[in-house]
Amino acid sequence: MAALETQLTELQKQYDDFKTLGLQLNMARGKPGSGQLDLSAGLLGAFPSYKLEDGTDARNYGILNGIPECRNLFAGLLGINADRIIAGASSSLNVMFDTMASLCLFGTGGGKPWHYYKFEGTPVKFLCPVPGYDRHFTICEELGIEMIPVPLLEDGPDMDMVSELAAKDPLIKGIWCVPLYSNPEGVCYSDEVVDRLASMETAAEDFRIFWDNAYGVHHFEERTPLKDILAACESAGHPDRTYYFFSTSKITFPGAGVALVASGEKNINELKKHMSAQTIGHNKLNQLHHVQFFKTPEGIRHHMELHAKELAPRFQMVLDWLEREISGTGYARWTSPKGGYFISLYTKPGCASRTVELAKNAGLTLTPAGAAYPYGNDPEDSHIRIAPSYPSLEELEKAMKLFCICIKLAATEHLLKEEKEN
Amino acid sequence: MAALETQLTELQKQYDDFKTLGLQLNMARGKPGSGQLDLSAGLLGAFPSYKLEDGTDARNYGILNGIPECRNLFAGLLGINADRIIAGASSSLNVMFDTMASLCLFGTGGGKPWHYYKFEGTPVKFLCPVPGYDRHFTICEELGIEMIPVPLLEDGPDMDMVSELAAKDPLIKGIWCVPLYSNPEGVCYSDEVVDRLASMETAAEDFRIFWDNAYGVHHFEERTPLKDILAACESAGHPDRTYYFFSTSKITFPGAGVALVASGEKNINELKKHMSAQTIGHNKLNQLHHVQFFKTPEGIRHHMELHAKELAPRFQMVLDWLEREISGTGYARWTSPKGGYFISLYTKPGCASRTVELAKNAGLTLTPAGAAYPYGNDPEDSHIRIAPSYPSLEELEKAMKLFCICIKLAATEHLLKEEKEN
Repeated sequence: MAALETQLTELQKQYDDFKTLGLQLNMARGKPGSGQLDLSAGLLGAFPSYKLEDGTDARNYGILNGIPECRNLFAGLLGINADRIIAGASSSLNVMFDTMASLCLFGTGGGKPWHYYKFEGTPVKFLCPVPGYDRHFTICEELGIEMIPVPLLEDGPDMDMVSELAAKDPLIKGIWCVPLYSNPEGVCYSDEVVDRLASMETAAEDFRIFWDNAYGVHHFEERTPLKDILAACESAGHPDRTYYFFSTSKITFPGAGVALVASGEKNINELKKHMSAQTIGHNKLNQLHHVQFFKTPEGIRHHMELHAKELAPRFQMVLDWLEREISGTGYARWTSPKGGYFISLYTKPGCASRTVELAKNAGLTLTPAGAAYPYGNDPEDSHIRIAPSYPSLEELEKAMKLFCICIKLAATEHLLKEEKEN
Repeated sequence: MAALETQLTELQKQYDDFKTLGLQLNMARGKPGSGQLDLSAGLLGAFPSYKLEDGTDARNYGILNGIPECRNLFAGLLGINADRIIAGASSSLNVMFDTMASLCLFGTGGGKPWHYYKFEGTPVKFLCPVPGYDRHFTICEELGIEMIPVPLLEDGPDMDMVSELAAKDPLIKGIWCVPLYSNPEGVCYSDEVVDRLASMETAAEDFRIFWDNAYGVHHFEERTPLKDILAACESAGHPDRTYYFFSTSKITFPGAGVALVASGEKNINELKKHMSAQTIGHNKLNQLHHVQFFKTPEGIRHHMELHAKELAPRFQMVLDWLEREISGTGYARWTSPKGGYFISLYTKPGCASRTVELAKNAGLTLTPAGAAYPYGNDPEDSHIRIAPSYPSLEELEKAMKLFCICIKLAATEHLLKEEKEN
């Protein structure tokens, strides 16, 4: 106990010293750094032309499902049939919300609108691998869709649990998935998981996989392969089970990029019908400029290698600091992703909120503890999401120094409290 | 009868001659002409800067309600408080659909979600001044909102009927309005109509005016004034009665412009809450580029004078042809708008569909007859919407020559049929 108290005093002193530096740094979200944004400077330059390949004037109305050259570019990049793609909205979050809202309003495949169940008093449910992306959970919460947490394992969601739940409850209408470098775990789905998701029996005929491939080309070095979920669903006799989302928010400019949804033929026709009441067509000039900038799928892949050069050293710095300062203490464990935007860190149970609070009080804003769980509820109070992309390396170094002190300080406080209680 | 038959033969010959020309012209929609689009060429040029006035990097995430300089620009142009504006989506149609969908999903002001009534079997209703904008009606139809047609008079909707209906039926939740140069009538709402809309009693507490000021600065010459509906609603004690929509689709580029919704404080907070689940923020670079291009409200007004120079001669040509060919025949009457995008033409009852069909068969596609009425149902089969903006003057001349023949031919067929029946 005395040793712990000495440690507390020492850490408290380091922490207080840090506070006097007046750090002001926000690492709450996965924002690209300015070096990454500079890579897309070409999009802020003049348009080479406003004409599409077929002569259509991209400045005027029309083309609900996105310009062909843009759908073809993404089709080539992702291995999806261009006819199954609706491209053009500015962000995939918007497309995901609209798709979910559309299911609530209209239903799909002849099933009842999902909000019908809500108004009947028995809301539909979604499976949520945890930890996961907080904005997915916000969509469900806003629309009154009940969330059921499912553990995310090393190669994807716990498929035994997913299969069992999906098979028995017709109110379970779907599952959220970030299949590559998942937010925030960095997990990549195995072929087996993809196949099981595609082929499992579901009590709901209108069960839908929301496949948010947000980091589909966001490798640091080697390209982790991902099995084609749309093809797997088609082979398994469920061609319309999956909505596949993708966007260039973390390729070009967040919220000013080009997003897409891809799915089976029936789903796409359904979405187009509803969309035709919502819009005459998305911003074609932005689509065209993206095509003019990248030209080919290989152009995007090369661009992502330049992104990796910005990101990889930041991730390495986070890992180096954790390794140096926390390794062997038992105060935390963490992930070492090979792509994406986040590192997950697990403190000792009961220490995550306090760690985040300590950091905040010293000028470092992190994602709120628990944010990666439905309703913000991490039952262990253990998970913290680290987003290394936005700060400069210099800022990140300071942030990590502080963060490591906070991890140790919170853990020490916790240990002391436990000792006193025993 | 013999005279009519001679006339029919002569018109049929003129029509057949025209058919051999192989005209291919689409005047179905209110699309800007390429001369109009050229006016905004600056938006296809390079960005002067990606920084906002306060130093914010517009390339990154954030700013849900739109960049301040963009909200201020529109605030100055339209006389709306910038804090009551949410700006940034690419088209007002999208914002209108999303707002209506939000009311169906979530309700407003503590009232039940509007779809609750639908699932109960008693759908909510909207008042629809006719003739009106077909895409407004499509939004209602798609969302299962029952439409009640109300005559559009010379200074706005028939307010005696609107007031009576709104006062007695709590399921009547709102009304569609295009208050300046209405689509397709070119009607401008009088101050009295605006005041009556703002102050009338409504059985539904959550009655909402969808105020689509699509042509708010689209004057041909003199600027027709429009009373401030948001201020009128506030004065009348209904600060949240109106959603005010506007966009630059017909100022810069259709579907690639900047749209906005403005409303009372409670509504705006409600919309922002729902929107925060849907998006992190709209395309700020597009907003910024528009601000950089126009600089001031006066910049937009000047730009609209250049648009008017493109549009006015086209409208004049349509009116000249109708005056020369149809005036005095009793076959049709038409409107002479002072702004906007459309001329309404009324054939003899029962002749509109046939006129449009004749035109189509000779290569001129017009808006389908009846499109300006809910469910596409013009009970008189009399209304045709003319959209003169897109064709060149040369094309328009040919189109009008053909159209006048079609009006006369359809009317003559109809008269002969009537005579035979009598």
